[in-house]
Amino acid sequence: MRIEDLDTPAIVIDLPKAEANLQRAQAHAGKIGMQLRPHIKTHKLPYFAKRQLALGAAGIACQKLGEAEVMAEAGIDDILIPYNILGTAKLDRLNKLHQHIRVAVSADSTVTVQGYRDRFQFPDRPLQVLIECDTGAGRCGVQTPDEVLDLARMIRTSPGLTFGGLMTYPPQAKRDKVQAWLSEAKRKLAAEAISIPVISSGGTPDLYHAHDVPAATEYRPGTYIYSDRMQVAWGHGTLDDCALTVRTTVVSRPTADRAILDAGSKALAADLCALPGHGHIVEYPDALITKLSEEHATVDLAGSDTGPKIGEAVHVIPNHVCVVTNLFDEVHLTRDGKVVETLPVKARGRMA
Amino acid sequence: MRIEDLDTPAIVIDLPKAEANLQRAQAHAGKIGMQLRPHIKTHKLPYFAKRQLALGAAGIACQKLGEAEVMAEAGIDDILIPYNILGTAKLDRLNKLHQHIRVAVSADSTVTVQGYRDRFQFPDRPLQVLIECDTGAGRCGVQTPDEVLDLARMIRTSPGLTFGGLMTYPPQAKRDKVQAWLSEAKRKLAAEAISIPVISSGGTPDLYHAHDVPAATEYRPGTYIYSDRMQVAWGHGTLDDCALTVRTTVVSRPTADRAILDAGSKALAADLCALPGHGHIVEYPDALITKLSEEHATVDLAGSDTGPKIGEAVHVIPNHVCVVTNLFDEVHLTRDGKVVETLPVKARGRMA
Repeated sequence: MRIEDLDTPAIVIDLPKAEANLQRAQAHAGKIGMQLRPHIKTHKLPYFAKRQLALGAAGIACQKLGEAEVMAEAGIDDILIPYNILGTAKLDRLNKLHQHIRVAVSADSTVTVQGYRDRFQFPDRPLQVLIECDTGAGRCGVQTPDEVLDLARMIRTSPGLTFGGLMTYPPQAKRDKVQAWLSEAKRKLAAEAISIPVISSGGTPDLYHAHDVPAATEYRPGTYIYSDRMQVAWGHGTLDDCALTVRTTVVSRPTADRAILDAGSKALAADLCALPGHGHIVEYPDALITKLSEEHATVDLAGSDTGPKIGEAVHVIPNHVCVVTNLFDEVHLTRDGKVVETLPVKARGRMA
Repeated sequence: MRIEDLDTPAIVIDLPKAEANLQRAQAHAGKIGMQLRPHIKTHKLPYFAKRQLALGAAGIACQKLGEAEVMAEAGIDDILIPYNILGTAKLDRLNKLHQHIRVAVSADSTVTVQGYRDRFQFPDRPLQVLIECDTGAGRCGVQTPDEVLDLARMIRTSPGLTFGGLMTYPPQAKRDKVQAWLSEAKRKLAAEAISIPVISSGGTPDLYHAHDVPAATEYRPGTYIYSDRMQVAWGHGTLDDCALTVRTTVVSRPTADRAILDAGSKALAADLCALPGHGHIVEYPDALITKLSEEHATVDLAGSDTGPKIGEAVHVIPNHVCVVTNLFDEVHLTRDGKVVETLPVKARGRMA
């Protein structure tokens, strides 16, 4: 089957571009001596997780327990879930996972550590717990290196737990600040002779500046596999590196300057990401997607010399690719214009 | 099972509230003498589509052929797809559907009508085609009543097609303009003795003002079943009428003023809808969801007297409910705090 034969809307992945993105990142990690632990939130596919491992990744990261279950079932045996896992139902599932593979989790409070401590009580096979640090992004994470010390002590005095190190989702382009924060935490832990197996940082935007935070030993990029319009705006590669597009059909040309596509917010997602428009139309780079309703994209052709005909298919690079793969049940892998494989997005919909 | 036993994030539907929303709308349609044709895009569930029909709806509307296929399979036999259906693959599927149930579609160009004309050639069972009119919303639709006349003539001279009437997705709160547009189109068709079986309008925000466009004979509301924060902001009912919430857990309390929930843009959708924040937290109405990342919501508690504890579950009324049901594979129907049924969102993911 050729790409032209795919009905729309559909996700089209350019395999050579994705492969180049994966290889470039792995080579960079090797060069700067950092472990790569790709975050599968972007693709949610065992297919690409295995490819990332084959290229040299140290393991993978999953944001949800349900995603980790899918990946473990597919044979992947080293998974970090950089998330506070709370509640009996999830702790039971985590325990099941922990019996079969190497799984690590994070915590940023005594409540979370207490939950792990109560549920995991096997000194022979302790659960690895990393401490999440808020190095400036203002999301989860302990606020000070002193709190790191408190939680590390609590983990180390729990027979069924083991201190896995530090984890942060860093603020973008504030690498000095992240380095200072982590160095201070390292110093405090060293003063108590607590060794730190891993210091894990992440985020595709700063991937090629990861060496500016030498305190980190591991990096968890997600979006780099496909890239998107937001990453390009942040200086990560070019639009030509974007491996994922949404193939969509022009269903209406109500006026000379307006075209309507059959992909709306239920296919492209409404995340504006401070960008002009809701995606980049590869075939009409000067056209602007001004509005998404659920199943229509409204395109302004005023700035474009040419416009598409009704029935014509075009390909859109999304603003934020991770939320787009989360909308589709399948993706089409392509090479040289041919669909070589169609894969179910296996970890999609694993909300909990 | 009780609601408290549901793991998070999860969609919780208050059945009595949804039922009240359905009954109120159907009663209003009866009172003003307008047919109701609920749009299932909001719930994507045969369960509620059947309930809407049992209450007196004239049929249902689906935005996607794939949704219509799911509904037809569930036994629903009168479906309007208010969309330009283009291309061989979709026309073949439409033809299959048309052989089993009463299906109607729309067109706003000669290209779309030509596609229907080429594919449907059975005068004994003609395909109903409505003409989509752009009455001011600036999406699809012919631009003038004269174009209506041209397309109506083309449909009427196609042996396998029958003119089904007019369809519009109207601009909000511009009912005079919509009425004037449709009246003019009616006049032009009447002058050629072309009868108009249906004039179909829609949109939940103007549902209880539908009588201000007396030219319309049918109304296609979607969101009214659950309602959401955007509808309430537009004057449609109150927050207490909102039947759908996302149950989510507080996973972190990094600072006194910050809470983090386990529902991000992959559960609540990032549609801001010109509202402050990304959803209304029922238990903490003065808290503000300032930011969504994919699997975290960041909540600012500065304006709230109290704040939730780590591990506590809260319920969020989304900004735009239709894109939220599109993210979950299942919904939980509840009554008096009990989960009475868990349903797969059957028509979710039917993109094409």
